[in-house]
Amino acid sequence: MTPTITLTTDFGLENEFVGVMKGVILSICPAARIVDISHNIRPQDIGHAASILKASCHYFPKQTIHVVVVDPGVGTDRSIIALKTDQHLFLAPDNGVLFPFLDEVRETYAITNKDLFLNKVSATFHGRDIFAPVAAHLAAGTPLPNIGPRIPETDLVKLTFSQATIDGDNLHGTVIDIDHFGNLVTNISQNEIRTFYADAQKEIITTINNKKIHGISDAYGDTKKGNPVALVGSRNLLEIAINQGNAADFFAAQINNSISLTRKKK
Amino acid sequence: MTPTITLTTDFGLENEFVGVMKGVILSICPAARIVDISHNIRPQDIGHAASILKASCHYFPKQTIHVVVVDPGVGTDRSIIALKTDQHLFLAPDNGVLFPFLDEVRETYAITNKDLFLNKVSATFHGRDIFAPVAAHLAAGTPLPNIGPRIPETDLVKLTFSQATIDGDNLHGTVIDIDHFGNLVTNISQNEIRTFYADAQKEIITTINNKKIHGISDAYGDTKKGNPVALVGSRNLLEIAINQGNAADFFAAQINNSISLTRKKK
Amino acid sequence: MTPTITLTTDFGLENEFVGVMKGVILSICPAARIVDISHNIRPQDIGHAASILKASCHYFPKQTIHVVVVDPGVGTDRSIIALKTDQHLFLAPDNGVLFPFLDEVRETYAITNKDLFLNKVSATFHGRDIFAPVAAHLAAGTPLPNIGPRIPETDLVKLTFSQATIDGDNLHGTVIDIDHFGNLVTNISQNEIRTFYADAQKEIITTINNKKIHGISDAYGDTKKGNPVALVGSRNLLEIAINQGNAADFFAAQINNSISLTRKKK
Repeated sequence: MTPTITLTTDFGLENEFVGVMKGVILSICPAARIVDISHNIRPQDIGHAASILKASCHYFPKQTIHVVVVDPGVGTDRSIIALKTDQHLFLAPDNGVLFPFLDEVRETYAITNKDLFLNKVSATFHGRDIFAPVAAHLAAGTPLPNIGPRIPETDLVKLTFSQATIDGDNLHGTVIDIDHFGNLVTNISQNEIRTFYADAQKEIITTINNKKIHGISDAYGDTKKGNPVALVGSRNLLEIAINQGNAADFFAAQINNSISLTRKKK
Repeated sequence: MTPTITLTTDFGLENEFVGVMKGVILSICPAARIVDISHNIRPQDIGHAASILKASCHYFPKQTIHVVVVDPGVGTDRSIIALKTDQHLFLAPDNGVLFPFLDEVRETYAITNKDLFLNKVSATFHGRDIFAPVAAHLAAGTPLPNIGPRIPETDLVKLTFSQATIDGDNLHGTVIDIDHFGNLVTNISQNEIRTFYADAQKEIITTINNKKIHGISDAYGDTKKGNPVALVGSRNLLEIAINQGNAADFFAAQINNSISLTRKKK
Repeated sequence: MTPTITLTTDFGLENEFVGVMKGVILSICPAARIVDISHNIRPQDIGHAASILKASCHYFPKQTIHVVVVDPGVGTDRSIIALKTDQHLFLAPDNGVLFPFLDEVRETYAITNKDLFLNKVSATFHGRDIFAPVAAHLAAGTPLPNIGPRIPETDLVKLTFSQATIDGDNLHGTVIDIDHFGNLVTNISQNEIRTFYADAQKEIITTINNKKIHGISDAYGDTKKGNPVALVGSRNLLEIAINQGNAADFFAAQINNSISLTRKKK
């Protein structure tokens, strides 16, 4: 079986960082197949990385090794951890980025075995010096317990996402991501909408930056070209879009902007 | 033989979209080799995708599966089609994006077999839920007729490119693409130039945004650094460039700007 | 053994250029594994490509073929060369981009054998028409001497990097790269700092655009969030950063800006 390793970083593609990680991996495990999830995580944005990873990892083959290097604490004494679920293995700094997977944890390890690192470990690029070689050794068959001691998952750094909140007839959330099309991804889930508004989705009014959208649609194309639309996107989260347009521009919207849903007055 | 799948989308690389498609493909067909053509097609720009694909696909191995997801109608009742030529197989929404290949068509199918889709199909991300799994099943050996019924190619949505036009001694075209260097790619082909001006290429004057370029050159370096140059580029189309500079900046040029060629007055 | 080919270009990812090169390679050598180092080299910036390649290539498997297409002279009579070291093989235009490897050279060739090129060679895209097919043929087992005549390495175009300079108690350098985080990479090496300031690194004052940073730190996180920090980065070069911030913005810094180090007055 070809071992698969995914990479999720905030390194961008301007420099050699991602290519170098792949070189290190292939030098140790020539059979590895490496897939980029994204290298455009917003710099040091742990929550962004967590949400991207959560939206992605379940679509990969079982036993995939997911390497996440969004690591504002690189070079400090923060730990590096491995988190094993039934399906996958994650390697990441212990900064909360793996919190979406805490309810699936089987085993957690601290990565401490320097024999698996590059000979010289820099203080600024653990992606190259630690993450890549450890992932490659695991892909090449090194048993997981060799990487370091098991640790209780309760020791991991916790991260809490901003949650949607309820206030009378209203559901309040925030914009957590803006995609390449300018679509605004919110932290309001399909389940929350269904629970709160039951079958009255046609009567929901979404407000963002003082503009209103009527109803929750099924597809971008349910409205005319250039019109705003609210719908449940591919992550099962409420999205605001402009059919064939750019909602971020239209609404002058940014990450962390507030969004609220309410019921149409009878 | 390793099956090869190419991806051409307008998804950008900021989010998980492309990585997720690869995860789906590898989960179904672990042997697939996936190559990115571009994920920076201008959003919803079907013509851009068509021209990029036309400039690329013939350089890939025979039997390559080319997946194109530039799909403003995602979630509506537009069809998804497979188009087979002697060399390649294309999967795309039926929105005209495959029109450059209509004169090579051997067979055309509507992709309707839900057994080949992911279990749950969203209304916003058919790249993940339909295109990726169908491409992977085909790469893994599913016979083409299993994807759905054959349809007459005359049923496909047609797209017409803006063509260069003739007006007396002049040839008029438009800027259809601007590359990473700021070079302006036009819709005027080498054949049109040769037919119209025969061997008088040194006497052609190219006009764009009220600036003129004298003669058609052979290479960027045929003029001094910083000077404009008109030449036939790698797609066999007329390009406007600045030697070691940025023509889009120099000419304040944008997609769809007009360009015209004329013969030097004797 | 799977042959590995890396690609380093200034082509960007907007267009088909990189995908087409991969198509050409896989058509000739289906077994090749292709790894992107970067396609965002600053346009025509040979020094940038050289520094990225130098920071990357030693992390790849032995016998890797590194293809570098940063080629302002494409279509002119500049040569294309192959440079073999004990570890690797490099293919590049003869424009100085391989100068960091001149002290490791074993053999140098001019690439002239048209049988290894695509049938039709354009004047604007040798990446597709020459570099990709030659790299693929070599990966597929074509002996190196088949590509063309050996040439003396002394014939290669030389490039000189701007070097750090000494002036009394001061060390002067320049910003040679700005990474995705906005970190400023300089041409002042760890060795130069150690030699010049011995163990007095805590007493070094770094000046850039009239702002000062005290001491050389070990990690970004050695200072508070938002504070500037000078440290030796992953290329063993002095870097200026803002902990969890953007130094390019903070210092309004650009490529080629001056930077100077001095000793704290007692």
